[in-house]
Amino acid sequence: MSERIANAALQGKVMSAEEAAQFIDNGATVGMSGFTGAGYPKALPTAIAERAKKEHAAGNDYKINVLTGASTAPDCDGVLAEADAINYRAPYQSDPSMRKAINSAAMKYQDIHLSHMGMLVQQNFIDVDVAVIEAVRITEEGNVVPSSAVGNNVEYMDAADKIIIEINEWQSLELEGMHDIWEMPKLPNRVPIPITKPGDRIGTPYIEVDPEKIVAIVKTDEADRNAPFKPADEISEKIAGNFLDFLEAEVAAGRLSYDGYIMQSGVGNVPNAVMAGLLDSKFNNIQAYTEVIQDGMVDLIDSGKMTVASATSFSLSPEYAHKMNEEASNYREHIILRPQQISNHPEVIRRVGLIATNGMIESDIYGNINSTNVSGTRMMNGIGGSGDFTRNAYISSFISPSEAKDGKISTIVPFASHIDHTEHDAMVVITEYGYADLRGLAPRDRVAKMIAIAHPDYRAQLEEYYERALKGKALHTPHDLGTAFSFHINLAENGTMRLD
Amino acid sequence: MSERIANAALQGKVMSAEEAAQFIDNGATVGMSGFTGAGYPKALPTAIAERAKKEHAAGNDYKINVLTGASTAPDCDGVLAEADAINYRAPYQSDPSMRKAINSAAMKYQDIHLSHMGMLVQQNFIDVDVAVIEAVRITEEGNVVPSSAVGNNVEYMDAADKIIIEINEWQSLELEGMHDIWEMPKLPNRVPIPITKPGDRIGTPYIEVDPEKIVAIVKTDEADRNAPFKPADEISEKIAGNFLDFLEAEVAAGRLSYDGYIMQSGVGNVPNAVMAGLLDSKFNNIQAYTEVIQDGMVDLIDSGKMTVASATSFSLSPEYAHKMNEEASNYREHIILRPQQISNHPEVIRRVGLIATNGMIESDIYGNINSTNVSGTRMMNGIGGSGDFTRNAYISSFISPSEAKDGKISTIVPFASHIDHTEHDAMVVITEYGYADLRGLAPRDRVAKMIAIAHPDYRAQLEEYYERALKGKALHTPHDLGTAFSFHINLAENGTMRLD
Repeated sequence: MSERIANAALQGKVMSAEEAAQFIDNGATVGMSGFTGAGYPKALPTAIAERAKKEHAAGNDYKINVLTGASTAPDCDGVLAEADAINYRAPYQSDPSMRKAINSAAMKYQDIHLSHMGMLVQQNFIDVDVAVIEAVRITEEGNVVPSSAVGNNVEYMDAADKIIIEINEWQSLELEGMHDIWEMPKLPNRVPIPITKPGDRIGTPYIEVDPEKIVAIVKTDEADRNAPFKPADEISEKIAGNFLDFLEAEVAAGRLSYDGYIMQSGVGNVPNAVMAGLLDSKFNNIQAYTEVIQDGMVDLIDSGKMTVASATSFSLSPEYAHKMNEEASNYREHIILRPQQISNHPEVIRRVGLIATNGMIESDIYGNINSTNVSGTRMMNGIGGSGDFTRNAYISSFISPSEAKDGKISTIVPFASHIDHTEHDAMVVITEYGYADLRGLAPRDRVAKMIAIAHPDYRAQLEEYYERALKGKALHTPHDLGTAFSFHINLAENGTMRLD
Repeated sequence: MSERIANAALQGKVMSAEEAAQFIDNGATVGMSGFTGAGYPKALPTAIAERAKKEHAAGNDYKINVLTGASTAPDCDGVLAEADAINYRAPYQSDPSMRKAINSAAMKYQDIHLSHMGMLVQQNFIDVDVAVIEAVRITEEGNVVPSSAVGNNVEYMDAADKIIIEINEWQSLELEGMHDIWEMPKLPNRVPIPITKPGDRIGTPYIEVDPEKIVAIVKTDEADRNAPFKPADEISEKIAGNFLDFLEAEVAAGRLSYDGYIMQSGVGNVPNAVMAGLLDSKFNNIQAYTEVIQDGMVDLIDSGKMTVASATSFSLSPEYAHKMNEEASNYREHIILRPQQISNHPEVIRRVGLIATNGMIESDIYGNINSTNVSGTRMMNGIGGSGDFTRNAYISSFISPSEAKDGKISTIVPFASHIDHTEHDAMVVITEYGYADLRGLAPRDRVAKMIAIAHPDYRAQLEEYYERALKGKALHTPHDLGTAFSFHINLAENGTMRLD
C-alpha cells in the first residue's frame, strides 16, 4: 500500500467507505471525479446512498448536490438516484435511473458546458464542500495522481474544505505521467494557455493538494464502467463514409491537408466507425484535441495514423481498457489527459483549429441542433462538451442517422424542439444520406440541403412544411409557427412523426 | 492631399467613385469597412448602386455580395438594397431598406458571429474579390490608417485581389495612434493573443498593405451616420437601476469588486442609461472590452470613472463624434480600436473576465434568448457580437423592457421563436421589473424568476402556460408544444400577444 500512498501521514487516514461517508452532511455539495464512465469513485457513492436510505428510514432529510466531470456509472449516479439522495446534479449524466429521476422532477439537473463547470466553481458561483476523487496514487508530498479521468478534480479539490480520496488498485500505476495538470489562475490574473499543438505538455503529472484537507482515503479495486462497443452497422458505416467524403472535399478545396487533421469526436458507435474509416484513408499524422479517448483512437494510434491524442478521460471497451492498463507506459507517449477546463477550453479549441464532430438528437431545416431534450422536454444526457467544441472549432459538424426508433422519429424536423447549438454555429450535418454543408448559406438556401439528407420517408412532409412556411409574411427564416412542432406533436399523440 | 496620401505612387490612383466602381464586376464579393454606422465607405456604395441601376436598365445582371464589419448606413446598405444590387450580405445589418429586402426574400443574408467573419475569410471559406475601405490616411510606405472603425479591414484587404481606399477628410488625422492592428497567423500557425488586460496594445497603428493591390483611391468628406441618442426614459432608467442592483449584489457576494469592473455593452438607449447610472455609482477603474464606443463610455472616460475602453468602432451622437474628432489625441490615451476578430475574440473575452450586457428581442421562461428573428421569421439586425461575448463572458446578462409595441408584445414568452443564445449561456435577464438570476438553477427553478420580471399583464398567461406544461410526461424542461408559440400566433392573428 505504501506504493499507492507514499505520504506517511496520510496512511493513517485509510478507512472504510461507510466511515468516510460520515464526512458528507445533508445538503453538502460534493465534487466528484469521473468522466464518461472512467475515473469515478467506486465506493463512496454506494456508501452515501446507504446512508441516505438509513436517514430517510429514520425520517431525516438527507440529500446532497453532486458535481462531476461528466457521466459516471450505475454504481455512482445510479445508486444515488435510486436512493433519492440527490437534490441537484451537474454538469452531465447518462444513467438510466438518474434520467428517470430528472424527468419525473424527483431531482434537479443543470446542463452546463463541460468547460464551464470548473470555472464556475473557481469563481465561487458554486461552493464545493467535499471532493471525492479517485486516484492512482498519492505521492510522498501528498499530491494526487488522478486515474483514468481528470475532469474537474483540480477545481473541486481546490475549492473543497474536505477531500476524500479513493485509491483504486485496478487502475494502473503506469498511468502516472499521462496526465498534464495545469490550472488557470483565478481572475483577474488569467494568462494565455501556452498550448499551440494538441501534444503540448504544460503542467505537472499530479495535482497539488493541501494534504491537511484530505480527511479520508478509501481503498477500492474495481474496473471503470467499460462497455463494449457494438460492431458498426450498415448505417454507421454509411455515415462514416459520408463524413470521409466531406473531409476529402475539404482537401480538394484546399482547406484541409492529409497531414495533420485535428479531430474532436463525440463518443459512440458512429464516431468509432469514422475512426475505422480513417484507418484506411489517406490521412496521416492525425491528432485529437478532444475530451474522450475511445477504442477507435487507440486503433489509430496503434496503426501510426494518429500521432497524439489530448483528452480529459478514457471511454474504452473492457478489452481496450485492459490493454491501456497493461501498456500505459507506451501509450503515454501519445496520450495526454488534461483537466476538462483545458481539454475543452475555447481558447485552445479555437487556436488549434479542429474539426468538431458530435452526435445530435435532431436538427431543424436551418441547422439548429438539439443535443439534449427529446421532444423539447425529456433530458437525455446533456450538452457535454459539444458546445465547447462546436462554438470554437475550425469546422463544426454533426452526425446522426436520419431516423430513430425504427423510423418513428425523423432526426431532421421543421423546428428543433430544444436548441443547444444555433444556426450560427453548426456548419455541416451528416446522415447516411449524405452531408449538408450549410456554410456561407442564408437560411432559405439551407433547406433543400437539409431535406436531401433526411430519410426519404420524411422528405415530402418536410417539403410540405417549408412550402407552408413560405406563405408567411416574413421570409428570412420561413416558418409556420402553428405547425412548427407538428412532427413532435404527432409523435406524442400517435407514436410516430409520420403523417400518413 | 499629400498629408492624407503620403505614398507618392498612390497619389496617381485618385479617381472618382464612378470610375472606381468599374473595378467591381457583376458577381464580385466586396469586403467593406464599416461597423455600427462608423467608418463605412461613403462614395462607392452609391456609385455601385448607380452602376447596378444602369446595368439593370440595360437588361444586364448585376449583383454583388457584400461583407462588412457590421451595420453601415442608408448611403451604404440602404442605397445598395434599394438598387437591388446585392445577392448575399453578411455578417450584420440594420438598415430599414435592406431589412425589407431580406424579409421579402429579395436578397440573401447570413447572420454570422462578428468574431467569425474575418476568420472565415482568412480560412478561405469565403473569397473576397475587392476590398473597399475607408481610411484616414495612407502612409509613405503605403500602409493604411483606418478611420472610425477597424472591423474586418485587415482580413478583407489581405484576401482581396484589388483594394479601393476611400480617404475621408471628415475623419480626424489624430485618430492615427488609436488603432491597434494585430493579425492572427493563419492555421496551423496560430498563437496565443498576448492581451491580458483591456488596455494592452500589441500591434501597429496602421494596416500593412501591399500597395500594388490598391487600384483606386476616392476622396470623400462626409460624416459617419451619427444618430443622436434619445434621453433615457423612465423604463430605461428602471432597467439601468436593476442592472446596477445586480452589480451591487455581485459585490456583496464577493464575486465583483468596485475596482476594475470590465464591461461589455450592446449599443442603445438602455445601455447608455446603464452608463449614466455608473457615473453616480461606487464603481471605479471601469474598463470596457467591447465592440463599440458609445456616448455613455465617453462620459465615463471624461469623469475618470472609466480608465480604458477597447473596441473595434465608434457609435456616437453627432455632438460626441465632433468632440472625438477634435480631441482624438487625448482620447487615444484611453481608447483602443482593434480588428473585430480581436475585439470579439473568445480567447480574450474569456481571459479578461467581463460582464456582458446585451439587448434581446425575447427570452423564454428557461432563459433561451432570441436576438434576431421577430416571431421566428423576420430578421431585425442580426446576432452581432452578442454571441461572442455571451458565450465566453464571466457573467452574461440580457437587458430589455418587458413589453414592446405598446404592450402588444411580451418580451418574456413560453418558447423563444428563434434561439441565438441558449439556456446554457444566458445567466441573468433584466427588465424594468427586476433581474432574474438563472445561475445554478435547473430549468424548472428558472420559471418563477422569469415570470417575476415579465410585465404584470402577461404573468397570468405565462403561469397558465407553465401549469399546462407541467401536465406533460417529461418534466426536465416542461413544455406544451401545442401551445408553445401561442403568444406569437396570437400576435400574428390578433395583433397582440394578450389573450384576453
